[in-house]
Amino acid sequence: VSTRKPRADARRNYERLLSEADAVFAEQGTDASLEAVARRAGVAIGTLYGHFPNRRALVGALLRERNEELFETGEDLLAAPQAAQALRRWIDLVVTHAASYQGLAALFADGAEDELHESCVRMTGIGERLVRRAIEAGEVRADLTGEDVFTLMNAAAWTREHGTAGQAERLVDLTVRGFSPPERTARAPR
Amino acid sequence: VSTRKPRADARRNYERLLSEADAVFAEQGTDASLEAVARRAGVAIGTLYGHFPNRRALVGALLRERNEELFETGEDLLAAPQAAQALRRWIDLVVTHAASYQGLAALFADGAEDELHESCVRMTGIGERLVRRAIEAGEVRADLTGEDVFTLMNAAAWTREHGTAGQAERLVDLTVRGFSPPERTARAPR
Repeated sequence: VSTRKPRADARRNYERLLSEADAVFAEQGTDASLEAVARRAGVAIGTLYGHFPNRRALVGALLRERNEELFETGEDLLAAPQAAQALRRWIDLVVTHAASYQGLAALFADGAEDELHESCVRMTGIGERLVRRAIEAGEVRADLTGEDVFTLMNAAAWTREHGTAGQAERLVDLTVRGFSPPERTARAPR
Repeated sequence: VSTRKPRADARRNYERLLSEADAVFAEQGTDASLEAVARRAGVAIGTLYGHFPNRRALVGALLRERNEELFETGEDLLAAPQAAQALRRWIDLVVTHAASYQGLAALFADGAEDELHESCVRMTGIGERLVRRAIEAGEVRADLTGEDVFTLMNAAAWTREHGTAGQAERLVDLTVRGFSPPERTARAPR
């Protein structure tokens, strides 16, 4: 005998849709069929659209929790004793995060003024503050910018998608070595 | 009064198709309409396919001359006195080359065993030899690989396409700085 109320049903559908969307996007990327997501969650496509008016809304909801965790770690890193190490850790976290679903980077880049966009702005802000701290500590070259870090994270996320995780890590390793202030680098081949 | 023979016409069509394809691909990328290329060259689409059975064949022909020039420069760089500088020059040349038409990197990556693929193999070979020379000269770290360089070139070409040329150059600058050997003094004299 079920005593579930309509609201409880709606909540259950919402949770199921999120969990199936997570699985489907992880397998097939963020342009996977929303019909398939609804089918796997055992609901009609109209129910999916009732909860999530479009694809970005679904991805946004899916990332909300993950993003919250990421941003909290980012804030913690801003207080970490070793600034350059903290910056490196941030880069690794964001690259792994961006690679969670194929196509996520492209969704971020398309730039609508919504929740996804807000996370992108917040992410960039944390990166910029981490760079400033590392410069002030003399641990990276003085001309390093948040944009440099952003470029590297995008390039590494793309490499992870189109090449291998090992290649992406190596790209980050080498580039981060290039962040060191001139006196700490033995020699810069140019 | 024209004394042109059919073969001269065919040659003229071929040259026109190449020159219009160059212009159209530079504007719209390598997935531009082949109909548009034929129209601009003033020939029927059948004439285009008579010369170039498919898109890859057209792009391949278009790159043949440019590639030849690039490879010759690459071979010259293998004899240049400063090995690390030569490697850097090679990276810049390939990144610029790869960015000549939007979508070229994807065409290269799709991996059919044809002329485009052969150029890719030749390109990789030159990169590997330049890395080996720079390692032997003690000008880059001993664990640097041709794959690292290939990864960087791809990532930079992608950044140039999706970000700006300035961001791509900065990524190369920083990464190449990271190629430097850890401590020059620790190296045995040669």
